[in-house]
Amino acid sequence: MTEPTHRVGEASWDAWGDPAHAASLTGSQRELIGQVLGIAPDAGLPRTPEAELRLPPGGLPRAARAALATAVGDDHVDTRAAARVRHAGGKSTPDLLRRRTGDVADAPDAVVLPADHDEVAAVLAVCAEHRVAVVPFGGGTSVVGGVEPLRGGCDAAVALDLRRLDRLVAVDATSRTATLQAGLRTPEAEELLGAHGLTLGHQPQSYEYATIGGYAATRSSGQSSAGYGRFDDMVVSLRAATPRGTLDLGRAPSSAAGPELRRLLLGSEGVFGVITEVTLRVHPVAEERHDEAWTFPDFATGVAALRALAQDGVRPTLVRLSDEQETSVNAVLAGEEAAPGCLAVVTHEGRAERVAAVRELCAAALRRAGGSDLGPDPVAHWRSGRYLAPYLRDALLDAGVLAETLETATTWSGLHGLRDAVTQALTGALTTRDGAAPLVLCHVSHVYPEGASLYFTVAAATGEDPLGRWRTAKRAASDAIAACGATISHHHAVGTEHRPWMQDEVGPLGVEVLRAVKDTLDPAGVLNPGKLLPERS
Amino acid sequence: MTEPTHRVGEASWDAWGDPAHAASLTGSQRELIGQVLGIAPDAGLPRTPEAELRLPPGGLPRAARAALATAVGDDHVDTRAAARVRHAGGKSTPDLLRRRTGDVADAPDAVVLPADHDEVAAVLAVCAEHRVAVVPFGGGTSVVGGVEPLRGGCDAAVALDLRRLDRLVAVDATSRTATLQAGLRTPEAEELLGAHGLTLGHQPQSYEYATIGGYAATRSSGQSSAGYGRFDDMVVSLRAATPRGTLDLGRAPSSAAGPELRRLLLGSEGVFGVITEVTLRVHPVAEERHDEAWTFPDFATGVAALRALAQDGVRPTLVRLSDEQETSVNAVLAGEEAAPGCLAVVTHEGRAERVAAVRELCAAALRRAGGSDLGPDPVAHWRSGRYLAPYLRDALLDAGVLAETLETATTWSGLHGLRDAVTQALTGALTTRDGAAPLVLCHVSHVYPEGASLYFTVAAATGEDPLGRWRTAKRAASDAIAACGATISHHHAVGTEHRPWMQDEVGPLGVEVLRAVKDTLDPAGVLNPGKLLPERS
Repeated sequence: MTEPTHRVGEASWDAWGDPAHAASLTGSQRELIGQVLGIAPDAGLPRTPEAELRLPPGGLPRAARAALATAVGDDHVDTRAAARVRHAGGKSTPDLLRRRTGDVADAPDAVVLPADHDEVAAVLAVCAEHRVAVVPFGGGTSVVGGVEPLRGGCDAAVALDLRRLDRLVAVDATSRTATLQAGLRTPEAEELLGAHGLTLGHQPQSYEYATIGGYAATRSSGQSSAGYGRFDDMVVSLRAATPRGTLDLGRAPSSAAGPELRRLLLGSEGVFGVITEVTLRVHPVAEERHDEAWTFPDFATGVAALRALAQDGVRPTLVRLSDEQETSVNAVLAGEEAAPGCLAVVTHEGRAERVAAVRELCAAALRRAGGSDLGPDPVAHWRSGRYLAPYLRDALLDAGVLAETLETATTWSGLHGLRDAVTQALTGALTTRDGAAPLVLCHVSHVYPEGASLYFTVAAATGEDPLGRWRTAKRAASDAIAACGATISHHHAVGTEHRPWMQDEVGPLGVEVLRAVKDTLDPAGVLNPGKLLPERS
Repeated sequence: MTEPTHRVGEASWDAWGDPAHAASLTGSQRELIGQVLGIAPDAGLPRTPEAELRLPPGGLPRAARAALATAVGDDHVDTRAAARVRHAGGKSTPDLLRRRTGDVADAPDAVVLPADHDEVAAVLAVCAEHRVAVVPFGGGTSVVGGVEPLRGGCDAAVALDLRRLDRLVAVDATSRTATLQAGLRTPEAEELLGAHGLTLGHQPQSYEYATIGGYAATRSSGQSSAGYGRFDDMVVSLRAATPRGTLDLGRAPSSAAGPELRRLLLGSEGVFGVITEVTLRVHPVAEERHDEAWTFPDFATGVAALRALAQDGVRPTLVRLSDEQETSVNAVLAGEEAAPGCLAVVTHEGRAERVAAVRELCAAALRRAGGSDLGPDPVAHWRSGRYLAPYLRDALLDAGVLAETLETATTWSGLHGLRDAVTQALTGALTTRDGAAPLVLCHVSHVYPEGASLYFTVAAATGEDPLGRWRTAKRAASDAIAACGATISHHHAVGTEHRPWMQDEVGPLGVEVLRAVKDTLDPAGVLNPGKLLPERS
């Protein structure tokens, strides 16, 4: 029951993922979307050829350049245009919009590629001394501005690309843990673990590119979080390099020896240090996998069913529920007739005996809650396209459609109010002057006993100022999330996009605590400026 | 399937728990123990009558006293001897030994009893201004010196007794959460929750006295941690008062909005702030409970069986395994013939349908791993005495036996080496000049996919300097734990006892991070001095 490896080529500089996998819309899809969203047939956003980019000259001071070359070797300080452009940011819709207009003003002055923890530490020391901003870079898949090479108060910025930290360091088969270096992408990590009959079970939509270190630094959550847990929960220990030295955190599966400091590095987004190595909970490759699709008459019934599963304690490996809109749009995109109701995808993985027992308990609970079993076929369809949705966003921009996602989480009792508030905020902000409303789709993809995440996909006409339109919509949605008392991000992290809401999230004193940790570990303030911590007022 | 409430009277000033429940040894038990440990029949440690205590005069400056009275009302600043003596420390064996000799030198200058969060905040402000140390006090059950009223650099110390914060603030039945004030003891909390058909499922040995706030501040773990999780995992959000203001942390069941700051307060032991309110995951009172005892031919076989349960993902609600020594001593104490092998206690709780399914999976796994089912009777015996063992410690001191516990955790692959190292350290340190070795018993009571806790009980002759003997043994055991790379505490916390090993636990830079947080939240340094953070060198 191993995952296909999904190895992919170098990511495109101006679009999601592997250019070889780029999506396109059929004529009739384009026509239908245009009608629904009120888009003129010639409204597509053009792209700027890479050769025409006007990249600012690299501004890395000569002494810093020399010191970095001493730290990692001259070959591993890359100041070529192609490398700088490919590290100019992440993959949010604002990133894609800026690339389309040829805006690569933020490209780092150099890309530095250390070989190991000690070289990372050496790079940080050089950058602290020379006041060079350091932006840790894994898969570059951030959709919240997390890898944007902002200078802060520094004189220059380098992207710290961790791809050379790509080793499986150790496997403890008895304790079912594996120590992986931070720069490993998921397909490569799964290949290395697979050779030991093991798997991590972490499959976010960014699976193809995202790295072990990036998952830890952003508190990622994969599609199978119900069974395998979110990434936080998989981390037994970690090692991080900081300008002040090395942190080795986590000495046991659990402890009461003070606050859990490894959790302070999880979600630190490169602002406190650079995670170089992570020891993770791993699992034997599943003996069996059983997929089931379920349908519910409406979203409220489906949500109540998922809540019963999450609270009863026998959870499937994967469970997700689309609302009515997402269910019907997915059907149309698949060329099927839109069925009423809401589709849920359920997967059970593990030892055959356990799968059989848990399947039955879950199916009984879902039936009791008003669900009907549709068999495995719709899941196969979902599974085949699970990492492809982000490619569609670029095809939509080609057709004049602004498409983006955002996500949050709250308690079960707050879930419907939150969905209504965010939907209204997005709809209000993105309805065109001609009255064409955006499409707002929503699903639940991560469940807990106390609540769940909500994941929104929104599509609207780009209009004349797509970036401005999106900024307005994002701000309205984020304000609605904060007003509901929900979290500003369940698994995309903070980056630059969510900084203004961090004070709502943890309060002014919480922000001060984060700043105190930052000032202790990075007194020169060179680590990933402009991310996570709100601006000092 | 509700728990008996176990409401108890005011705790003894010089012994564990309710004086009405004090244990005593039978003549033959005393004789047997004396023979095994080489103890003279007249070796018991005398107790000092409370009337003979020489309590130092209270040193609370008049202005501080007046300001505290303004903050909480004059009636709630208690400077009477009885109150001060009862807040002079916790319930470690060193605490009990010092009380027996009449040593209450550390008693606080006053006991302050705020009514709510705002009054706690007001007390902290007064204490910061007047340089008075504040020692948060819940159930007073710390066995690591966590409530010792040390002055640090302050002029006086008050115990901040949270017993008046005893309300169930809110129940969210849909999200299965309850908001409880910090001073609630477990039996009272369970009574309040029980009125809603709910339970917390947290049953540490200190159940009768320990409080919600204390559990959060020390990262407690209950006997049913396999099913209900450790206390950390139950906390959805919390509120803490600090000298710099209030922290409200946790806006969703899970989040990627920066590091999980609620985890920075969990385990903070009153050093960063005073937790006043906690929103917790709760459960419907179990429909069914099924107890099973199992026996394994030896500890290694039993450990492998528990590992199979923990790693397969279908866990019982409670599972614990005694080693050969503990199994036979428990049998002897119960007046039974000592059977060979190791006893395990297993409990399944929950919805009837789930219990039936999980029971079968677990039983099959345990049988496959070499276990034999002994039926429910031995569990009933364990259950009836589950909160009584600490009472026995005082009866043993009466008989000249030094008895104490300590605990740690590590990976499965490190577990046997850790047990050997700690056993050797304790044995080496406590063997008498006459060659009488201590009894060292061990059990596993908390399991995780990656590893487990080890809980040691040690009994030895008190000798002429019981406190010195114990300090030597504790140091040897702690050094052995650190050398094995295990954690210095799985659920007892740090307090004063484990401070010297915190640098091993999180490294010098980790200690600096904790200090930076401390300095931000408590710049005057009045919060629980001398706990958690190692001394500045």
